[in-house]
Amino acid sequence: MTHRIAILGASGYTGAELVRLIATHPSMQIVALSADRKAGMAMAEVFPFLRHLELPRLQKIDEIDFSGVDLCFCALPHATTQEVVAKLPRGLKIVDLSADFRLRDPADYEKWYGQPHAAQELQKEAVYGLTEFYRDEITAARLVAGTGCNAATGQFALRPLIAAGCIDLDDILIDLKAGVSGAGRSLKENLLHAELSGGTHAYSAGGKHRHLGEFDQEFSKIAGRPVQVQFTPHLLPMNRGILATVYVRGDAKIVHQTLEKAYESEPFLKVLPFGLLPSTRDIAGSNFCHLGVIGDRRPGLAVVVAVLDNLTKGSSGQAIQNANLMLGLPESEGLMLAPVFP
Amino acid sequence: MTHRIAILGASGYTGAELVRLIATHPSMQIVALSADRKAGMAMAEVFPFLRHLELPRLQKIDEIDFSGVDLCFCALPHATTQEVVAKLPRGLKIVDLSADFRLRDPADYEKWYGQPHAAQELQKEAVYGLTEFYRDEITAARLVAGTGCNAATGQFALRPLIAAGCIDLDDILIDLKAGVSGAGRSLKENLLHAELSGGTHAYSAGGKHRHLGEFDQEFSKIAGRPVQVQFTPHLLPMNRGILATVYVRGDAKIVHQTLEKAYESEPFLKVLPFGLLPSTRDIAGSNFCHLGVIGDRRPGLAVVVAVLDNLTKGSSGQAIQNANLMLGLPESEGLMLAPVFP
Amino acid sequence: MTHRIAILGASGYTGAELVRLIATHPSMQIVALSADRKAGMAMAEVFPFLRHLELPRLQKIDEIDFSGVDLCFCALPHATTQEVVAKLPRGLKIVDLSADFRLRDPADYEKWYGQPHAAQELQKEAVYGLTEFYRDEITAARLVAGTGCNAATGQFALRPLIAAGCIDLDDILIDLKAGVSGAGRSLKENLLHAELSGGTHAYSAGGKHRHLGEFDQEFSKIAGRPVQVQFTPHLLPMNRGILATVYVRGDAKIVHQTLEKAYESEPFLKVLPFGLLPSTRDIAGSNFCHLGVIGDRRPGLAVVVAVLDNLTKGSSGQAIQNANLMLGLPESEGLMLAPVFP
Amino acid sequence: MTHRIAILGASGYTGAELVRLIATHPSMQIVALSADRKAGMAMAEVFPFLRHLELPRLQKIDEIDFSGVDLCFCALPHATTQEVVAKLPRGLKIVDLSADFRLRDPADYEKWYGQPHAAQELQKEAVYGLTEFYRDEITAARLVAGTGCNAATGQFALRPLIAAGCIDLDDILIDLKAGVSGAGRSLKENLLHAELSGGTHAYSAGGKHRHLGEFDQEFSKIAGRPVQVQFTPHLLPMNRGILATVYVRGDAKIVHQTLEKAYESEPFLKVLPFGLLPSTRDIAGSNFCHLGVIGDRRPGLAVVVAVLDNLTKGSSGQAIQNANLMLGLPESEGLMLAPVFP
Repeated sequence: MTHRIAILGASGYTGAELVRLIATHPSMQIVALSADRKAGMAMAEVFPFLRHLELPRLQKIDEIDFSGVDLCFCALPHATTQEVVAKLPRGLKIVDLSADFRLRDPADYEKWYGQPHAAQELQKEAVYGLTEFYRDEITAARLVAGTGCNAATGQFALRPLIAAGCIDLDDILIDLKAGVSGAGRSLKENLLHAELSGGTHAYSAGGKHRHLGEFDQEFSKIAGRPVQVQFTPHLLPMNRGILATVYVRGDAKIVHQTLEKAYESEPFLKVLPFGLLPSTRDIAGSNFCHLGVIGDRRPGLAVVVAVLDNLTKGSSGQAIQNANLMLGLPESEGLMLAPVFP
Repeated sequence: MTHRIAILGASGYTGAELVRLIATHPSMQIVALSADRKAGMAMAEVFPFLRHLELPRLQKIDEIDFSGVDLCFCALPHATTQEVVAKLPRGLKIVDLSADFRLRDPADYEKWYGQPHAAQELQKEAVYGLTEFYRDEITAARLVAGTGCNAATGQFALRPLIAAGCIDLDDILIDLKAGVSGAGRSLKENLLHAELSGGTHAYSAGGKHRHLGEFDQEFSKIAGRPVQVQFTPHLLPMNRGILATVYVRGDAKIVHQTLEKAYESEPFLKVLPFGLLPSTRDIAGSNFCHLGVIGDRRPGLAVVVAVLDNLTKGSSGQAIQNANLMLGLPESEGLMLAPVFP
Repeated sequence: MTHRIAILGASGYTGAELVRLIATHPSMQIVALSADRKAGMAMAEVFPFLRHLELPRLQKIDEIDFSGVDLCFCALPHATTQEVVAKLPRGLKIVDLSADFRLRDPADYEKWYGQPHAAQELQKEAVYGLTEFYRDEITAARLVAGTGCNAATGQFALRPLIAAGCIDLDDILIDLKAGVSGAGRSLKENLLHAELSGGTHAYSAGGKHRHLGEFDQEFSKIAGRPVQVQFTPHLLPMNRGILATVYVRGDAKIVHQTLEKAYESEPFLKVLPFGLLPSTRDIAGSNFCHLGVIGDRRPGLAVVVAVLDNLTKGSSGQAIQNANLMLGLPESEGLMLAPVFP
Repeated sequence: MTHRIAILGASGYTGAELVRLIATHPSMQIVALSADRKAGMAMAEVFPFLRHLELPRLQKIDEIDFSGVDLCFCALPHATTQEVVAKLPRGLKIVDLSADFRLRDPADYEKWYGQPHAAQELQKEAVYGLTEFYRDEITAARLVAGTGCNAATGQFALRPLIAAGCIDLDDILIDLKAGVSGAGRSLKENLLHAELSGGTHAYSAGGKHRHLGEFDQEFSKIAGRPVQVQFTPHLLPMNRGILATVYVRGDAKIVHQTLEKAYESEPFLKVLPFGLLPSTRDIAGSNFCHLGVIGDRRPGLAVVVAVLDNLTKGSSGQAIQNANLMLGLPESEGLMLAPVFP
C-alpha cells in the first residue's frame, strides 16, 4: 500500500533530502510539495538534481488539499512551524523537522529560542523523535518532533552511558565538527565557498548553542537529575556529516561494551571494534551512524566518536524512519541506501 | 529470482561502487569478492562505508568457485584484465570495466595502450558497453566491455549529432572537466588532497588521452568515414563527476532537437530545455546523464554540455545497466537512486 | 618616499587583496579606506585576516579627505563606480578595478552592461590597464581601468599571436575555468559552499559574458579588423585562480615561440617549455601568469593554457602594478610575493 | 648583509615553504638545496610554483660545499635527520625542522619514536625552537630544534596559563583540527583528495600522538611537576591550518587576561577580544597565530582556541624566525607577509 505524503518547505535542504529518500521508498508517494516564495515552480527548477522524478509543482501551504494526505513532513523554519502546524487538520500525522516541538517545557523553549511558544498544546502532544529511544511513543504518535542533528549525534554517543551509570555525569564534553549543510540554504557570507572552504572555526561556543536545550532535557531525564554538558561545535569545509568527539570519565572498555550492547540489534547504529574511530566519509548520504571508543594513556578517560550525516540520520532520514513507524511500515524501509564513497 | 554476482578487483573505487549499487539491487546478490593483495580481509576493513553489509571476505581470484556465479564484474587494471578474463570459465557472463576490450581492432589497442593485445579472441567477442546504443548486442552478449568514463560522456553528447549529420565532422572539440575518482585509488603526488584541492590543470592533452581510441572507433563507425575529435581533459578538485563541454559547428536548435528526440525515451539521459546547461552536482552518485545545448552570438556554433558521474553512469552504474540486460532484468533495476545533493 | 593610498570599496575581496598586497609594499601606505555600509568598523572586524595591520577605520567616501591622498584604488561595483569617480578631485590618480572604464566605445558599454554610460568624458580619458601592453599610456595616465580577470587571462594567451598573425582569427575558442572569488562577496545560493564545492558548471555561456566586450575591443584593435572569439566560462570549486584553455588554428611550435619571445623580459609572465601545461595551484596568491602550449595529433591545431590568480594578477595585483607605474615606482615593487603552495 | 642559506630536504612541503618565505626575505639568499632522490632536478620541476625564482639545482647532501653556507635549514624526515646533522660541519648554524632534537631526554625520544637516539650529544646541545619562549637560548644556539606544529599550537594556548597557575593542571584537554599538509607529501590512500575531501576523522587518538612528548616535556618543566594533557587530533579537508580547541578549568576572564598580557608585545601572537574565537582562514599562509578565549554557561570552565598555519608558524616560518635570531637579524624580518584570504 502506498502512503500519500506531503512535504512543507520543500525548497530547503532537508526538504530536498526527503524527496531524494522518498524517490526510492517503496511505500511512499509524494502528493504535495510546498514552498511559499517558490510556489508555482517545478521542483526541477529549484533542485535540478531531482529532474528525473515526476513530482507535483510547488504550492503555497493553504493551496494543499490535505484530505488526500496520509502523512505530512514539515521542514519549515523555526517559529514559523508552530503557526503552520497549529492550522493543519487535527487528524493528520505530522513529522516536524524544525526545533519547535523538541523541548517539552515551554520555559525551556523560551530560554533557548528567545520567544514564548505559540502552540503549547501541540508542544505537549509532540513526541521527541530520536527513533531508537522513543519507538513505542513514536509509533503511537500523531506529531513527532525531529531532533537537532547535533543533538542526535551527541545522544547516540551518550544515552546508553548515562543510563548505565558508567560515566561521571558532571564532566561530559562534546567537541563537535559539523558540515555546512546543517546551516541550511541561508545566504550568509561565512557560508560562501570562498569563505568556508579550506578552513575551520568554532561557532555558538561557550554554552550558547540551542541544541544544548535538547541535551539538558534528555540527559537529565535519563539520569533522574540535572545534567549539563559542555558543548563546542565547529564548522568544517564539508557539505554533509557531523563528527562528535565526546570526552567522558569512565572505563573505556566498559563504555565500549555498553554501547555495543545497547546497539547490537539496531539496523542503523554501528559500533566499531574497540580502538577504531569512525570517519564522516563512511556515512555520507546514508542513514547510518558509526560509533567508536578509545581510551587514553591515563586510565579512567574514554573518548567516544560518533558520526552521522546531518541531512539523513540527523534529520530527513530520521524523519522517514519515524514516519515508517507511524504508518505501520518496517522501520528501515527505504533507508538502507549505502553511503556514497568517495 | 536472485542472480549470484562476483566482483573481481573489489578494493578499487569502481569495485566499491558496484558493491554500493548492488547493496540495494533487488535481484542481485554478491557471492564473491576478489582483491589479490587484500585477500583475507573483510570488505569493511578496506571500505568502512560498507560496514553495514554482510559481504563475503576478499579472496584471491583463483580461490573463487565460479560454478556458483551467474555474472562476474571485472574491475581490474588494464592489461591484467585480459589475462584474467582469458582464464575464466567460458560460460560465465562477464562485464568488464577495464579498457582491455573496448577497442575492436588489435592494432588500435596496441597503438593506444602500448602493447599487443594478449587475448584477441575475447577482444573480437566483446561488445562495446555503451548501453543506450548497443542494447541488443549487450542483451545477447557473454562479454561486455564497459566504456571509458570520459568516452561515455563525449559520446552521449555527440553520437546522435553525428548520426543525424547535423554537425561538421571535421571540427569537433571536447573540453572535458573530470573529478579525481576517475584516476582510481592510485598513490600519486598530484592526487593528494594537498596538491589537488583548490586548483585545476589539463592532463593528457594534445591528442594523447587513451579515450581518443574509443572516440575514433565509435564516431568513425557512425559516420562511415574517419572522424577525429580534439580532446583536452582537465582534472578538477571534485571527487565525482565529469562535465564535457563539446563545441560543434551546426545549428544549435537543431542540435538540441536531435538530442531531445534521440533520448526522449531514455530513463537515464535527460536533455534540459534549450539554453539551460547542466551541473555535475545534479547527477553525483546517480546513473543519470544531463545534457544541455546553447548557441553562440555567432550563428552556426553550438555548445553541448554533458554531465555524468564517472563512477556510476561512467563505469559501475553502466556496468550494472548492462548486467541487467544480460540477465534478463529490467534495464534500470537498482539504478534509480536519486543523486545526492548537496 | 611613501605614497599615500586610499581604497574605496575595501570590504570586498579585491579591496581586501589590495590591503594584503600593500601591507608589505615598501613605498605605499594606506591612509583611507571606504565601505559605505560598514563605515565606522575596523578593517579587522570585516576581514579578521588583516588583524595584524594598523589601518584606518572604514569611512563613507564623502568623509575622506582626498587632499592627503596620492593615489586612489576604486574597488566598487560596476555602475556605482562611474558616479563616484566623476565626483573625485580632478587631480587625483585613480586605478579603477570595476568594469566601468574598460570599454572605449559608449555604445559597447551600453550593449554589454545594459545601460548608458554616465561619465563618458572619463571613459574617454581612461587607459586600459593590461600593464604589459599599455605601459607607456598607463605611466602617463591619471585614470586607469583595470581589466576583467577573465579578459586578462585570455589576452595574455592571445595578444602576441594575433599581433604576429600566426593564428586563424576566425576560429578562436576560449574555454575558461574560474575560481569562485571572481564572483565577489555576493550572497547567492550557487556560491554557497554546500552548492559549489564538489562540482562544476558553465555560466554566462553562449556569447553572453561581459568580458567578451573587452576581447572584441582589444583583439579587433590589434588585428585591425573585427575579431570575435567564442568564450565559455565555467565555475570551479576553488577560491582563487583562472585557467583558460585557448584553442587556436596555427602551428603549435610557432605559437609557442611567439609567446616566449613576446614575454621573455616580462617579470610576471612565464612561458613554460613546449608541451608543458600550467596549473592554477602554481600561481595562487601571486602576481604571476604561467602559460603553456601544446599541439594536437592533427597538425595545425594548438592549445594555449594560461593561468593566473583572479584576485592578484587578474585584479588587485594588476592594479598595484599599474599604480607603481603611475607613481614612478619600479613596476614589480611589492609584487614579487611567491605563490602559496600547497 | 646577505646570509647564505642551505636547505636540506627541499622537495617536501616544509622545504618548499622555506623557499617561498626566503624568496622575499631581504637578508637571506639560498645557495644550496638538497633532495636526494631528486638530485639534479631544477626546483621548478619539483615545485612549479617556484618557477619565477633563480635557485640552485637540487643536489645530494654530500655534494654541498658547506664552507659557503652561513645557516642550514634541515627539513629531512625523522631519524634520517640525526645521522645527517651529526655529519655536518661543527661550526654550521642549523635550524632543524624534524622531530629529532625536540625532546631533551633520550628515554623520552625512544619512548615516543620507538628507537634509541643516535646522536645524543647533539640532542643535548639543541635548543627547543618555540621562539617566543626561548629567545635568548635560540639567539645563542648553534642547533635549534623546530617544534611540532600541533605542539606549537597547543603551547601558545597553554604555556602562559600554566606559568601563571590559573588553571587546573590535571584537567587539560586539547581537541585539535589539522590540515592535511601537516602529513607531508606522503603517498597514503587516506591523504588522496578522493578520500580526504568532504570528511573528517580523528587520528593518533588515545594518548598516542608523538607531539604529546613535547607537551609533557614543556608543560611539566613550566609547572615544576608532571603534567599530562589529553590530546585528540583530527584530520580536516583543508591544506593549511591548525585549530586547537583547548579546554581548561579556570576563570575564563583571567585566562584571557593572562594570555593578553603574555603576548601584548609579540609581533605574531594576536589575542582576540574576549568571547571572539579565531578561524584558520585568517592566518593561512602567514606567520601569525590568533588566540581567542570564551567561558561556558557553567562557571570555572574556559575554552581557548588557537589557530596557526602548520607550514608557516608551525614549522618553516618558525624556523626562519629562529634563524633571524641566530643570525642577528630582526626577529620578524621577512615574516610579515599577510595571510591569504579568501
